[in-house]
Amino acid sequence: MCPESRDVPAGDLTKTGMALTHDREWAYELDRIVETVQERDAVTVGLQFPEGLKRRGPGVAADLRDRLDDDVAVLISGQPCYGACDLDTELMRRSDVFVHFGHSPMKESEKILYVPLVSNVDPFPIMQEALEELASPAEDPDLCLVTTAQHHDRFDAMRSWLEARGYVVHTRRGDDRLTHEGQVLGCNYASADVDAEQVLYVGGGKFHPVGLAFEHRDKRVVIADPVNNVVDVADADAFIKQRYGAIHRAMDADTWGVIYCTKIGQGRWETAREIVDDNKDAYLITMDEITPDRLMNFGLDAYVNTGCPRITTDDGPQFDRPVLTPGEYEIATGREPMDALSFDTFHGTW
Amino acid sequence: MCPESRDVPAGDLTKTGMALTHDREWAYELDRIVETVQERDAVTVGLQFPEGLKRRGPGVAADLRDRLDDDVAVLISGQPCYGACDLDTELMRRSDVFVHFGHSPMKESEKILYVPLVSNVDPFPIMQEALEELASPAEDPDLCLVTTAQHHDRFDAMRSWLEARGYVVHTRRGDDRLTHEGQVLGCNYASADVDAEQVLYVGGGKFHPVGLAFEHRDKRVVIADPVNNVVDVADADAFIKQRYGAIHRAMDADTWGVIYCTKIGQGRWETAREIVDDNKDAYLITMDEITPDRLMNFGLDAYVNTGCPRITTDDGPQFDRPVLTPGEYEIATGREPMDALSFDTFHGTW
Repeated sequence: MCPESRDVPAGDLTKTGMALTHDREWAYELDRIVETVQERDAVTVGLQFPEGLKRRGPGVAADLRDRLDDDVAVLISGQPCYGACDLDTELMRRSDVFVHFGHSPMKESEKILYVPLVSNVDPFPIMQEALEELASPAEDPDLCLVTTAQHHDRFDAMRSWLEARGYVVHTRRGDDRLTHEGQVLGCNYASADVDAEQVLYVGGGKFHPVGLAFEHRDKRVVIADPVNNVVDVADADAFIKQRYGAIHRAMDADTWGVIYCTKIGQGRWETAREIVDDNKDAYLITMDEITPDRLMNFGLDAYVNTGCPRITTDDGPQFDRPVLTPGEYEIATGREPMDALSFDTFHGTW
Repeated sequence: MCPESRDVPAGDLTKTGMALTHDREWAYELDRIVETVQERDAVTVGLQFPEGLKRRGPGVAADLRDRLDDDVAVLISGQPCYGACDLDTELMRRSDVFVHFGHSPMKESEKILYVPLVSNVDPFPIMQEALEELASPAEDPDLCLVTTAQHHDRFDAMRSWLEARGYVVHTRRGDDRLTHEGQVLGCNYASADVDAEQVLYVGGGKFHPVGLAFEHRDKRVVIADPVNNVVDVADADAFIKQRYGAIHRAMDADTWGVIYCTKIGQGRWETAREIVDDNKDAYLITMDEITPDRLMNFGLDAYVNTGCPRITTDDGPQFDRPVLTPGEYEIATGREPMDALSFDTFHGTW
């Protein structure tokens, strides 16, 4: 375990593991990118980094320019980026080769090179500590194992490690939104649809396990976080209370904005269209980034976000009007009962 | 003059005249939009409003839905919009008919309907007051007259009014970025390239006249603001000092981000490319909205914004690193002398 993480208070799961520490080397496959650019006689190369890696962008661009002909333009996306659902399609159109860093492929494409970010943190010491939070194999041998793209390279080793300690490890690839066996996304926990009541999440931060606990409310989700060096149990109660609060406030709404997100992997056109077709006081609004400022301008009473569910649930309190998921809208308008509340899973690609 | 504007303190030019007061009727040409949609058998209609009109969006959409077939989808753009340079091209691609409200055309297109916002405020009482700030016709008969798209319908009447008082009124259409005789944009004051040392700006707010005073530093720019009911003289000194401050801070920069703006009317690709080709420590970054958050992530020492110059000059102090116009970059890197500072005029369309 790294010495600096010893100072992190227990339960502080602030680091997601999706950023590079300043001094860490990063094997970002320069050769593969250069070869692809040369093979395709590309003249424009677009690079897209998620927020935690953007600071490495200029360095990567400099390395590429050193190796490529002078007439090749290297462009870095300055758009926010929160996942493989969130490709900079504008830059992609302008690029002959488009390199997306830090996320696993949501869908393969001829033009896109995906370059992963693989964690170098050893997960086994914190998994050892996490055993104390899990039911023992004698009490309950069935255990679901999930992780993020940053740790998937050790997924088989994690499974073997748990099996050696007596667990029957249940895993799944989830649906076609997911690349790897046992992988979770912020919007999709289909990999935990297995026959086990306890789940071990190995990865950084609370973002993923809290979503998992919300989607699978019958399961106990133990967090083994090798990035913050913390063991915890995911608790979705605060989330669920907050969601019921938003639903209740939205029940008074006379007018609705229905947001159709234009990000390539976040569009649910049919869902948005059905709501508007069925409610004469609902208006279709299109945007990429969904922010409090952008919604406030319209002055509507409540909003339904058919885009990223984590903006709805995690950023919800920042909006001055209630913002609901499509399922929550059904509840607020009396089409579904209160106990129909569920996590707004995103399926499919684009 | 409207009674409520009497309460505005002298010199307070906060209202731009580009928003509708809540109770004001707006003749937004519903018939023309409906006819165009029907003529073209359009199935998707995109509506885009600038910030000051967004609140009217749902009402316009409701009127259109009442008049159109049920199978026509009406979509409202939720993207920020600051000018005719700033069309929502994503929504435009999805729309059979695209209606852009509140700005005059920067370039005609088959798909776009432009619906203007014309002010109903009488400009002549405040022009009468502004005469006291102007040199009399006996002292200097030559007077340049400019206004914004909101007031252009009375432009000829303003000219006649000034001529009746003894002035020789000089006007121009400017270049092809501008629609109307005497019109100014935040980024283009070519309509004031006339042989007169004094300029009368009739319109709301300080945004346009301060830009004009910066571009034409040899001219005296008198503001007759019928929206805030204020007469003032535009002063670009604070702007110019702030720009020199940014240039001085940028002189220490080792690394540069060169922003290429992807908004349809704000792209200066050649300018961006030339800077990067000539400076191995400069990196091309593409984005639509240029915000402090988006730049901070890259951790570069200074930035050159080849997009909207008003973000550079007006929002400059909000960025934690210096952001320069292309011309200011030339000064900061010693390619041009200090006194080469000038307003970063935007020419052309797209």
